[in-house]
Amino acid sequence: MFDFVFHNPTKIVFGRRQEETIGEELKNAGMRRVLFIYGRNSIKRSGLFDRITASLDRSGISYVEYGGVVSNPVLSHTRQGVELARREGVEAVLAVGGGSVLDEGKAIAVGALADDDVWNYFTGKEVAGALPVFTVLTLAATGSEMNGNAVVTNEETRQKYNIGSPHVYPRVSILNPELTISVPRDYSAYGAVDAIAHVIEGYFTRQAGSHLQDRLVEGIIKTVIETSNVIMREPDNYPARAEFMWAATLALNGLTTAGLREYSFPNHMIEHSLSAIYNIAHGAGLAIVMPAWMKWYSARAPERFARFAREVFGREGAAAGISALEEWFAAIDAPVRLGEVNIPAGDIDMIAANAAALASKWGIGDLYRREVIAEILQLAV
Amino acid sequence: MFDFVFHNPTKIVFGRRQEETIGEELKNAGMRRVLFIYGRNSIKRSGLFDRITASLDRSGISYVEYGGVVSNPVLSHTRQGVELARREGVEAVLAVGGGSVLDEGKAIAVGALADDDVWNYFTGKEVAGALPVFTVLTLAATGSEMNGNAVVTNEETRQKYNIGSPHVYPRVSILNPELTISVPRDYSAYGAVDAIAHVIEGYFTRQAGSHLQDRLVEGIIKTVIETSNVIMREPDNYPARAEFMWAATLALNGLTTAGLREYSFPNHMIEHSLSAIYNIAHGAGLAIVMPAWMKWYSARAPERFARFAREVFGREGAAAGISALEEWFAAIDAPVRLGEVNIPAGDIDMIAANAAALASKWGIGDLYRREVIAEILQLAV
Repeated sequence: MFDFVFHNPTKIVFGRRQEETIGEELKNAGMRRVLFIYGRNSIKRSGLFDRITASLDRSGISYVEYGGVVSNPVLSHTRQGVELARREGVEAVLAVGGGSVLDEGKAIAVGALADDDVWNYFTGKEVAGALPVFTVLTLAATGSEMNGNAVVTNEETRQKYNIGSPHVYPRVSILNPELTISVPRDYSAYGAVDAIAHVIEGYFTRQAGSHLQDRLVEGIIKTVIETSNVIMREPDNYPARAEFMWAATLALNGLTTAGLREYSFPNHMIEHSLSAIYNIAHGAGLAIVMPAWMKWYSARAPERFARFAREVFGREGAAAGISALEEWFAAIDAPVRLGEVNIPAGDIDMIAANAAALASKWGIGDLYRREVIAEILQLAV
Repeated sequence: MFDFVFHNPTKIVFGRRQEETIGEELKNAGMRRVLFIYGRNSIKRSGLFDRITASLDRSGISYVEYGGVVSNPVLSHTRQGVELARREGVEAVLAVGGGSVLDEGKAIAVGALADDDVWNYFTGKEVAGALPVFTVLTLAATGSEMNGNAVVTNEETRQKYNIGSPHVYPRVSILNPELTISVPRDYSAYGAVDAIAHVIEGYFTRQAGSHLQDRLVEGIIKTVIETSNVIMREPDNYPARAEFMWAATLALNGLTTAGLREYSFPNHMIEHSLSAIYNIAHGAGLAIVMPAWMKWYSARAPERFARFAREVFGREGAAAGISALEEWFAAIDAPVRLGEVNIPAGDIDMIAANAAALASKWGIGDLYRREVIAEILQLAV
């Protein structure tokens, strides 16, 4: 256990129909006017939009509607949202959707209080403040509902970069597992891959830590696998959707990395380039990158990988654990090779150059040089 | 997973020498004058008192000193603290010590803002507010550093009752494992028993829940056992003290019970009577009560107890798991029978009557009638 600060002030309201309390939560927090940000019009067809606006109306909260967030949210739409938030004088951001909507909502919350371009905060400028963020989650995967991270893609420069700041922890996040029942099979699988990716980065790359975090991680992975197997068979199984949803939140809310030292996020680093360049789903990209990275990295941490194989899959040996994970990704129909998402092997050098820039930004450029990233990606051909 | 609200806003600052930052934390929170509450004078001999007051001085925080909190903190001393806090116009409570000091500090924080007797809030009146609470923890056990609970004993009526309120979550808790190295062997063992007691109550008594919480609980128990075995041999082993400290915090910060339904705290209910009447250490009382309660209860939840035996101890069958836990308590020299702390079997009816009153207050009086509690205690003779 190494020195750490753990401070996660997000209030989680978990359960059926809880989105109907969002107006009250906003009112209790003193908010009167919000930017209501969402993605596609499916929230109107499903009735979710109406339930939320009815809740806002009951509590006397006015709102400015801002739809159209895309998966892998983009800077241009974020900038327009910042302009809208400033012009309309909203007091908070209400993000209703999956991780993409939440992340763009957080970015707009930062931009609305800044007097310069919001992209500056993705390239290194420290976030000085943000509008309060409130969320209603409709897809369990990214953990954005209970952390201070946001990822946005600059589509001009093909940079998928992130903000990390205490200012963008949501004040309140409403998690109703019923809302995730309509998530299609492929995105349910990608969510599972994403949640696993969030916990294995620290687990494998940490230079020191403790068994307590190991056990948290192993418990989350086993839960994700177990509940996803049920969800693949029975998409409307509420208990499985619920348990998965909370596991995905705990996977990236700071708990699994509290007390670790010198860990990094190489799988996310490489995947960000895949989805920035090819606009594939983040979870799909991670399913391709992770087995490749693990095969390349396992010799550097053989004890960690042997433990993973034993505790998560009941198998012996690093290679057996990696195979088991890769087989499970394939079993839930997540892609595990670049060709499955139509990325040609000939692009690897170009992808590696893109990823190497992010590696430098994240301070792991010494290990993850361009040629090393290319070597890892070759294992995914 | 059942509906729940999880909201734990306490900031944890964890690591070596972190107590020297307490002045800055108070200043950043806008505090200028605090009630500095502690237990025995050992914090002066150890130099901790001076390090903290130096930190307060550096940040321009004035303080009113209030020592003398006893283990199983008592109402009379709490009331005096409330008077002092009101008279001196402090803006916050700074509690430096173990769970007893933190709990009395929380009670004083409630009483200082109330216009009636603080005991009213232990007997059922809802807490409407409290001074902000800041803590420096010197003994890992109760979890009070990251929750909204406080237990105080009314020594006139021999009632050991509790407050549970969002108002008494500490704003900041500083956890320096070095400060726990001087905890004597017996209290280190009681701390381990207490942390285990906090997680097993929900684990065994819940009417419904999920494997995610089960795995969190099992991971915490295995960590507590593993690190305590090291601490018993090497009291100054920092990594073991650190891992134990964080495990004890996670054991009662709301995570292990989020999403459970209809769970209760029968072991704490019975133990509160033992320590209220005989003033024994809470952890010692729990080590006596738990094996007895488990033997009595296990037939009601055979699958839960079989899982406990298998996952925590690698044994088969409910009885084997209970024996393993009892043997481990004995191995770390925690008492497992009433006679070991000089409580005569002839007192059982009187103890049961005291506990039955708390059972009613906690809404579990239908199951835990006086004669049932006596039957459980007979198993500890």
